[in-house]
Amino acid sequence: MSLERNLLVGQSGGPTTVINASLAGIISAAIKNENITAVYGSVYGIQGVLNENITDLTRDFAGNTAQIERLKHTPSMYLGSCRYKLPPLEDAAGDYDKIFEVFSRYSIHYFLYIGGNDSMDTAAKLSAYAEQIGYDIRIIGVPKTIDNDLMEIDHTPGFGSAAKYIAASVLEMAHDTYIYDLPSVLIIEIMGRNAGWLTASSVLARNSYNQAPHLIYLPETPFSTSGFIQDVKEQLGKRSQVIIAVSEGIKDTEGEYISAQASRIDQFGHIMLSGTGSYLEGLVSDAIGCKVRSVELNVLQRCAAHISSHTDIEEAFRLGEEAVLAAEQGQTGVMVTLNRVCTQPYQVSYGTASIDKIANMEKKIPASWITPSGNDVTNELIQYLIPLIQGEVPLKYNEGLPDYLFLKKESKYKTSREDMA
Amino acid sequence: MSLERNLLVGQSGGPTTVINASLAGIISAAIKNENITAVYGSVYGIQGVLNENITDLTRDFAGNTAQIERLKHTPSMYLGSCRYKLPPLEDAAGDYDKIFEVFSRYSIHYFLYIGGNDSMDTAAKLSAYAEQIGYDIRIIGVPKTIDNDLMEIDHTPGFGSAAKYIAASVLEMAHDTYIYDLPSVLIIEIMGRNAGWLTASSVLARNSYNQAPHLIYLPETPFSTSGFIQDVKEQLGKRSQVIIAVSEGIKDTEGEYISAQASRIDQFGHIMLSGTGSYLEGLVSDAIGCKVRSVELNVLQRCAAHISSHTDIEEAFRLGEEAVLAAEQGQTGVMVTLNRVCTQPYQVSYGTASIDKIANMEKKIPASWITPSGNDVTNELIQYLIPLIQGEVPLKYNEGLPDYLFLKKESKYKTSREDMA
Repeated sequence: MSLERNLLVGQSGGPTTVINASLAGIISAAIKNENITAVYGSVYGIQGVLNENITDLTRDFAGNTAQIERLKHTPSMYLGSCRYKLPPLEDAAGDYDKIFEVFSRYSIHYFLYIGGNDSMDTAAKLSAYAEQIGYDIRIIGVPKTIDNDLMEIDHTPGFGSAAKYIAASVLEMAHDTYIYDLPSVLIIEIMGRNAGWLTASSVLARNSYNQAPHLIYLPETPFSTSGFIQDVKEQLGKRSQVIIAVSEGIKDTEGEYISAQASRIDQFGHIMLSGTGSYLEGLVSDAIGCKVRSVELNVLQRCAAHISSHTDIEEAFRLGEEAVLAAEQGQTGVMVTLNRVCTQPYQVSYGTASIDKIANMEKKIPASWITPSGNDVTNELIQYLIPLIQGEVPLKYNEGLPDYLFLKKESKYKTSREDMA
Repeated sequence: MSLERNLLVGQSGGPTTVINASLAGIISAAIKNENITAVYGSVYGIQGVLNENITDLTRDFAGNTAQIERLKHTPSMYLGSCRYKLPPLEDAAGDYDKIFEVFSRYSIHYFLYIGGNDSMDTAAKLSAYAEQIGYDIRIIGVPKTIDNDLMEIDHTPGFGSAAKYIAASVLEMAHDTYIYDLPSVLIIEIMGRNAGWLTASSVLARNSYNQAPHLIYLPETPFSTSGFIQDVKEQLGKRSQVIIAVSEGIKDTEGEYISAQASRIDQFGHIMLSGTGSYLEGLVSDAIGCKVRSVELNVLQRCAAHISSHTDIEEAFRLGEEAVLAAEQGQTGVMVTLNRVCTQPYQVSYGTASIDKIANMEKKIPASWITPSGNDVTNELIQYLIPLIQGEVPLKYNEGLPDYLFLKKESKYKTSREDMA
């Protein structure tokens, strides 16, 4: 039996701009750690274990701090991702046997999984299975999600950078909107699924000369189309240009997504799903008739690494280091966490929490942080957000564009292909 | 009669991230110039003259280089804009009399207008009218447009920054797309009206590991939906993820906009206009059935000043200075221009060209810079583009967000309002 004690790390779920900063923290700490022999990466999340698509990170990063620094500032998942959900433990025959067979063959005794609430479900199941079969492994979850909807953590890595991108973009779009002396409405659709954190962060665009967004609609508050039109009319009575931030996940009083009402039929009779912002644009156009435009911030919210928050990057890196430390100290079945000690001056501490308290749950904005009108947020929420977007990244540019790092990955779809991204 | 010789500057048309850099160059040069008494700004373009909405820029900027520096990096129009078209000279009675009455009252002998091809029409008409009535004024056009579609200039200020934003965004979205080991298509819709320059600049996202965009569709080439589907299928035979850059202004072989075919009927029977990208998304979904997403880069292309091109900012500033110089040396009815002396090393020279050769015309991509297949661009075009996105801006941040400058403007719509943006 091998005396090696190797570490395997994977990335899963939707991307953020700092998920590789956590990977960089893990690689950096694990390479230095005397109790860890080698560091491997699972390509395309847990599917990399199932397909035995494993890459040697010690080989690629040991002694190369410049490469670790580049990784730290590269968006999305260097190792690739998946949205694969493991079956219930009772159906253990297939996936679990295969995974632990690969773990054993590679002498994996530390498995670190960077992901959101769905990915924590994977970590929890693997942890329970390892205990069942008595396999010596420490399984640690490392949080990430732009949505900021994980329990047991003050805020999630990835959220601060997305918030910074959103606030900067809203401010820049406000400058763009204020140029004409004409009444107009701009609707900005923001991600976040069922939690309004990202949409709420648009409030940070307000400053001494800009009050936009003038209206903020979150999934936590039931949305009324008639109330919305009334709000917009009221704002147009106060100012020429009205800028609105709206979450993709707003629901009506019946709990149904507003975007579900936005399906349309094209000229061939096909049903086309449309976005929430585009639907509200139609409402304003019909009910008010002024100039109106909707903008969907879309995937750039989670990948515009050139304007990441320095605070966010550093916290994500540190959580990676903390995960290695927790594993090496014998913890398992936990996610590393970040607790706010103080908001002014901003200070956090690091710890761990049981994955069972995190997997498959969503943390939403407390009702007390939303104004009674349901179309704005309170100062308490603003104070919570401010520290998270502070600091700019020391990003290197090459020929005018950000200098990112990319791993050529073996794909099960690309056997006879050019194999070139 | 006043001995003052004052300069008036206005901004017009659609915004760019460097139009204020030209304004900063004008203010900086005019304040220093002994033959120019005071510098005024016309608020909301030529409408500021018609409504006598004039601001004193000498008061706000003289001796304040830090403020000029801030203006230089602020997106959109500091002075506001308009899309007002002056009537033909024959209908001179109203607008022209009013404009020259205001010019005379403010002792304006230099009028500088920063804008695109429509704005040059205004400058040309005012120039012709001044000659008719023998009013002593020098009228100079200062170019700007993200579309890069002006004649008589190597490239327009504003284009390089938009190109840098587009290329960086496409690269970041490529990182976002490559994370899953699943066939998918991403369609990115880019601005530019009838000229493909902006869409073509997405090609700069290609590097040693990334070949996206894999297909590029420009308005200069007639678009065939069947050819498009064939192209996508062919690409999906080579690689898992296919990324496509498409111009908002592509047209079919009959010359009709593809986006015009994208109108849909909502659940209330209303016709909704949709974007080109969203229409192509529907085509791919129907004909191929793989995962497909469309992203519209939208207004951020013209206002994301946090990732402006340093080269672009400096050229825009210099063109402002050159315009003051040209005016003071007695030129009128011209636009300041920028000529490429050399691509490697990149070097430009400054000059002027008659506005008549520029107003109301569009410069498109030469056919020889598009590949025969019509879905890609040549190396010659790439070499033309590369210098324009070089260099990053030394932008100041305040509390985590870009520190921009804003002018509170009198609005004809806001008399009884909060008057707060």
